[in-house]
Amino acid sequence: METTMQNISIEKTEKTKIDQVDFDNLAFGSVFTDHMLVCDYRNGAWEVPQIMPYQAISLEPSAKIFHYGQSIFEGMKAYKDADEKIWLFRPLENHKRLNISAKRMAIPELPEEFFMDGLKQLIKLDENWIPKKEGSALYIRPFIFATGKGFHASPADEYKFIICLAPSGPYFSGKVKVLIEEKYSRSANGGVGFAKAGGNYAGQFFPTQLAVKKGYQQVIWTDDHNHEFIEEAGAMNIFVRINDTLITAPISDRILDGITRKSILPIAEDEGITTEVRKITVGEVVEAAKNGSLKEMFGAGTAAVISPIATFGYREVDYDLPELESSFASRLKKRIIDIQYNRAEDLFGWRHGV
Amino acid sequence: METTMQNISIEKTEKTKIDQVDFDNLAFGSVFTDHMLVCDYRNGAWEVPQIMPYQAISLEPSAKIFHYGQSIFEGMKAYKDADEKIWLFRPLENHKRLNISAKRMAIPELPEEFFMDGLKQLIKLDENWIPKKEGSALYIRPFIFATGKGFHASPADEYKFIICLAPSGPYFSGKVKVLIEEKYSRSANGGVGFAKAGGNYAGQFFPTQLAVKKGYQQVIWTDDHNHEFIEEAGAMNIFVRINDTLITAPISDRILDGITRKSILPIAEDEGITTEVRKITVGEVVEAAKNGSLKEMFGAGTAAVISPIATFGYREVDYDLPELESSFASRLKKRIIDIQYNRAEDLFGWRHGV
Repeated sequence: METTMQNISIEKTEKTKIDQVDFDNLAFGSVFTDHMLVCDYRNGAWEVPQIMPYQAISLEPSAKIFHYGQSIFEGMKAYKDADEKIWLFRPLENHKRLNISAKRMAIPELPEEFFMDGLKQLIKLDENWIPKKEGSALYIRPFIFATGKGFHASPADEYKFIICLAPSGPYFSGKVKVLIEEKYSRSANGGVGFAKAGGNYAGQFFPTQLAVKKGYQQVIWTDDHNHEFIEEAGAMNIFVRINDTLITAPISDRILDGITRKSILPIAEDEGITTEVRKITVGEVVEAAKNGSLKEMFGAGTAAVISPIATFGYREVDYDLPELESSFASRLKKRIIDIQYNRAEDLFGWRHGV
Repeated sequence: METTMQNISIEKTEKTKIDQVDFDNLAFGSVFTDHMLVCDYRNGAWEVPQIMPYQAISLEPSAKIFHYGQSIFEGMKAYKDADEKIWLFRPLENHKRLNISAKRMAIPELPEEFFMDGLKQLIKLDENWIPKKEGSALYIRPFIFATGKGFHASPADEYKFIICLAPSGPYFSGKVKVLIEEKYSRSANGGVGFAKAGGNYAGQFFPTQLAVKKGYQQVIWTDDHNHEFIEEAGAMNIFVRINDTLITAPISDRILDGITRKSILPIAEDEGITTEVRKITVGEVVEAAKNGSLKEMFGAGTAAVISPIATFGYREVDYDLPELESSFASRLKKRIIDIQYNRAEDLFGWRHGV
């Protein structure tokens, strides 16, 4: 047990598990590093975080997380450059969004220093777990959930903030085929769609399973009123390229303020690509697919970075996207990844050394 | 360890906690009985349930319940009549709805016999915990949550079904003041509002906190499109009496198919009360309040049975409901409770002996 400058206590594992891991064949988010960070909210305050060996959590069956879905999370990655220096990508944005989610879900906001200091110390301790293979990364999962007890449907009085690290391979493999959804919806006006709340994801599982049965990997979510507007792609933001204009839907209380999404926009402009942030109708996308002006569609998110869509289905018809030699998707993905891995100039000040 | 006819294993507690409980001053859902039922889903099947001492659960930090809100629950009560015989109220409806929720949340459906046999054996074992005080009851909480591991946003491969029992006092005390909500929403068309999914409840906490700060206890939810229709009252269904007609909103994919709600309708008819199941506009309720034809509003649900609303707020104006000598709410509540406690004829075959 050693104590750091920030008073975060660190209990190191007695034996690393790293030699049991096949770093050449990593799935996404299924292997966890030796340590985790745990921070408890009790008596009206967040206690000082502790770093400890990755281990099971013990909870009463009446803990509110089991009953009322009071939970939020973030997704981030850590990268190592050629000099073995470790980088994060816009981590303060994750902290800010965690607190935006917290507020909507009636969870107490977490101080920035607990998040940032805890994260950096945890990553440093487990830095050997950062995969070196291109396309792999150390996926970081900060999350908060209600541990307070009781069946009264009201906010808990106790919470746990945890950070786990998972060396991960790509989220998707191969070409992605998506289905434009017209029956099920992801979120309501005035709802929690803009928050990274656990329940938003479970609600997508069944419609996605139905799409998978029809041969698609993901659902394109539309508005719940008329299913007229394209809003998100699975658990990612969506971009559509019509002719040479790159379009993405504006964020709203239904749409997550994705960090990859809001990084793509200035990079695209820097690349000389015309961007538009505006509502996208299903009708115009189908029309553009028919007349050949639809060049690309892709999802954007931390896990997959940029995930090009090969085909979209709409009302029993599949529309194939063209295969381009130099797509916006590949240009933008390369620009972002090069910044993340410290292989390119950090024009926007997004890299954050650990 | 004894084995029952249904092969449910029972491990009894070594020492009961019952003498530590003040049955005259029970809060809602905050004291738990000696035992609980646990049933695991593994390798594609629900395993035989086990009854064991009420105890903490150990879970990996990567269990999907913490990340993606994949959880559902039910609420029920057990009653003891004057002869100490134990009764449930329409328990098969709870089982049916649990599986409706399960399907929407991509959770494997639970066999009826595991639910019913498990429930009855658990209640028999802890029958001394059923409160005798009028207004108190043994609240039953069956719930299922994802224990399967990993950060991939997809359904878990393992789940836990648990039943806990909580001797409980009334959910609300005193007069209930509600606020008609026009900014936040509970659920989307094509969403999960009809399911008893955990996330539906956490999403209500923040808007309810805002209402509480303004002096209300609960929010009346309206549709997410125009906030034109009254849909639910907090975590209950809503009834409105205009003149002598009792009106409730039809169930939909946004509105929970409440068992108290659907028991009130035939009882009201049996009482000679005219009922209407139709959409209720905020406009007509406000108008009726102004012209005096609005006689009653109440919430209906297992926890509170029938919860009369004394005042509703709408656009900064409070509307008081009249205090009636013989309200529909009190007549209907008495009829339901008398059936539940085996003090009245069970016209509809709703009582279920344990």
